[in-house]
Amino acid sequence: MKFNKNLQNIKTYEAGKPIELVVREFGIEPKDIVKLASNENPCGCSPKVIDAVGAILPKMALYPDDSMIKLKNGLSARYGVQNKNVIIGSGSDQVIEFLIHAKAHNGSKILMNSITFAMYEIYAKHVGAEVIRTASQEHDLDEFYELYKKEKPEIIFICTPNNPTGDALDAAKIYDFLSKIDGDTLVVIDGAYMEYAIAKESKKEIVPKELIEKFDNVIYLGTFSKAYGLGGMRVGYGLAESKIVEELYKLRPPFNITTLSLEAASEALNDEEFVKKSITLNFEQMKRYEEFAKEQKIDIINSYTNFVTLCLNSEQDSTKISNQLLQKGMIVRNLSSYNMNAIRVTVGTHEQNSRFFELIAQYL
Amino acid sequence: MKFNKNLQNIKTYEAGKPIELVVREFGIEPKDIVKLASNENPCGCSPKVIDAVGAILPKMALYPDDSMIKLKNGLSARYGVQNKNVIIGSGSDQVIEFLIHAKAHNGSKILMNSITFAMYEIYAKHVGAEVIRTASQEHDLDEFYELYKKEKPEIIFICTPNNPTGDALDAAKIYDFLSKIDGDTLVVIDGAYMEYAIAKESKKEIVPKELIEKFDNVIYLGTFSKAYGLGGMRVGYGLAESKIVEELYKLRPPFNITTLSLEAASEALNDEEFVKKSITLNFEQMKRYEEFAKEQKIDIINSYTNFVTLCLNSEQDSTKISNQLLQKGMIVRNLSSYNMNAIRVTVGTHEQNSRFFELIAQYL
Repeated sequence: MKFNKNLQNIKTYEAGKPIELVVREFGIEPKDIVKLASNENPCGCSPKVIDAVGAILPKMALYPDDSMIKLKNGLSARYGVQNKNVIIGSGSDQVIEFLIHAKAHNGSKILMNSITFAMYEIYAKHVGAEVIRTASQEHDLDEFYELYKKEKPEIIFICTPNNPTGDALDAAKIYDFLSKIDGDTLVVIDGAYMEYAIAKESKKEIVPKELIEKFDNVIYLGTFSKAYGLGGMRVGYGLAESKIVEELYKLRPPFNITTLSLEAASEALNDEEFVKKSITLNFEQMKRYEEFAKEQKIDIINSYTNFVTLCLNSEQDSTKISNQLLQKGMIVRNLSSYNMNAIRVTVGTHEQNSRFFELIAQYL
Repeated sequence: MKFNKNLQNIKTYEAGKPIELVVREFGIEPKDIVKLASNENPCGCSPKVIDAVGAILPKMALYPDDSMIKLKNGLSARYGVQNKNVIIGSGSDQVIEFLIHAKAHNGSKILMNSITFAMYEIYAKHVGAEVIRTASQEHDLDEFYELYKKEKPEIIFICTPNNPTGDALDAAKIYDFLSKIDGDTLVVIDGAYMEYAIAKESKKEIVPKELIEKFDNVIYLGTFSKAYGLGGMRVGYGLAESKIVEELYKLRPPFNITTLSLEAASEALNDEEFVKKSITLNFEQMKRYEEFAKEQKIDIINSYTNFVTLCLNSEQDSTKISNQLLQKGMIVRNLSSYNMNAIRVTVGTHEQNSRFFELIAQYL
């Protein structure tokens, strides 16, 4: 059977290995496995969320409230926007999918950083769009602007803080860049890790309400998978001028968020204390990674997220080392598929991080 | 901002009104609302599922096992197929989305019944494909075959039992039809309600294992939303020859099923007793609808599902009557958008059905 030609170019996304898979592949006991590969919150999720979801389990039989009114109200209140500015996706991934399908097509150009979140390219290939990348590893908005003028892309992705490197742009620079972009180019500001960046340095803060008021061609993306500790529940969102949201809505499948996920995310917004505690722990523990890197004479990228990227020296091989770690039950993300001799490690609990330092020290 | 032209033709799916919306719109107390609009299982879901999901709530923080090994093993065992024959979607809707995006494109033709599940057309429009429909209300496979020869569609949808009418085809007729279709046309057998059909009449049973062995251009769709009572958890699946599954997999977003949904569906497969009980109750209660229709001199379509379609007489108006019911807190599905003067009612519990008879009798 013949399928559409675009499919020939699609590589499937390489997810961090789940614990279950390591159990199966290496026969390691689940209790001995530490997963620091997917930037999950090591504090888990809020106990209030567990209680709220636990209380509505019989509702698993009922289709979700497709208007998502409770969660939309929560997000609108949090960001000071209106419900018509909010679209909710099965992870912010799905919002990325909507916007690429809405705006790009065969032959479109999509501009993004040399190293950035892999799903942008995967969805671009779904529609046959061409991916244009900058040369510099960190987002260089001057280079973005040059490429914008030259290539005239339909969509520009800016991921701040960036994944998988952890660096973040100053908000002022982004606003300046946006003011130079024409109104028919869609600019996506992916703030999946923004809660961490804001806590570290206020000048990194992108305020979605301001974005929406100033620019009618910009969408801000957020997620419940990181600071809110709900990676398993698949809830992300886009905030934009209502005309953009209306178009994306046309591509939203009905019931794209489960009944329990809606409840979990709504309740998560009611426990900012949990988020704050998670972030405090994160940066306390991140200091240990910075010290470790210094001791081991490895470069570490200044991170505004809940992960660190360790750039190995030339005599060290990220693929070999991450495999050695895996065989000991330590799951991290090898960045060789991004052409980096580096590993990305989620900042875990004190105990998990100690275990990481102890293990990797043997292989460096 | 300009968006892709296809979007202009997309109507969003009209979901059954959730209880929350009726509470908001009409100020009716939740306890006084009966929802018989979305073919949810009135028995809820299996208590075993509630226990299993309740036991892993802290895992909400962890990304799902993207290999879905546990659920795939369960489905493969149930259907006697191999894991490579299984693709899992966020509802069978998502598998429909994958296959349309994989096989159809701008200018493709997709053949389906005059009245059938609305999502086929919505996803067809996403890619700019043309929808070809039969004239007859029930699936007439001779007519399908004539249109197939004339129009040469890329995809043919057969929904059995059909939604929103409830009628089902004999398996023998489907096999006969499939044997006449060329190998490059993808035929989709949507069996979302198949568990009910099999219980009512064995000759309606489509056996996916046989389909896969005989035809390399056919995919069977199933769901956990109906007989398994997990409408809120968004889990459906496609079973097909591995070459089809591989192509669809390229379009599957990572982590498309939540951590809790994977657990719920896996555990649901371990409680076939619950499914059996649900189906028995369904057909016991369906008799009451058949008697009611007879008494009221309304046509009822012989249903192989968990809903009944009441075809009103010309002096009765389905839109008016369903609105009258709604104002009393009784939510049913008006089929006027399918050009039918009919209402579709989920077969509920004894009490829910009694309430329906009592209310609608006032408006007929």
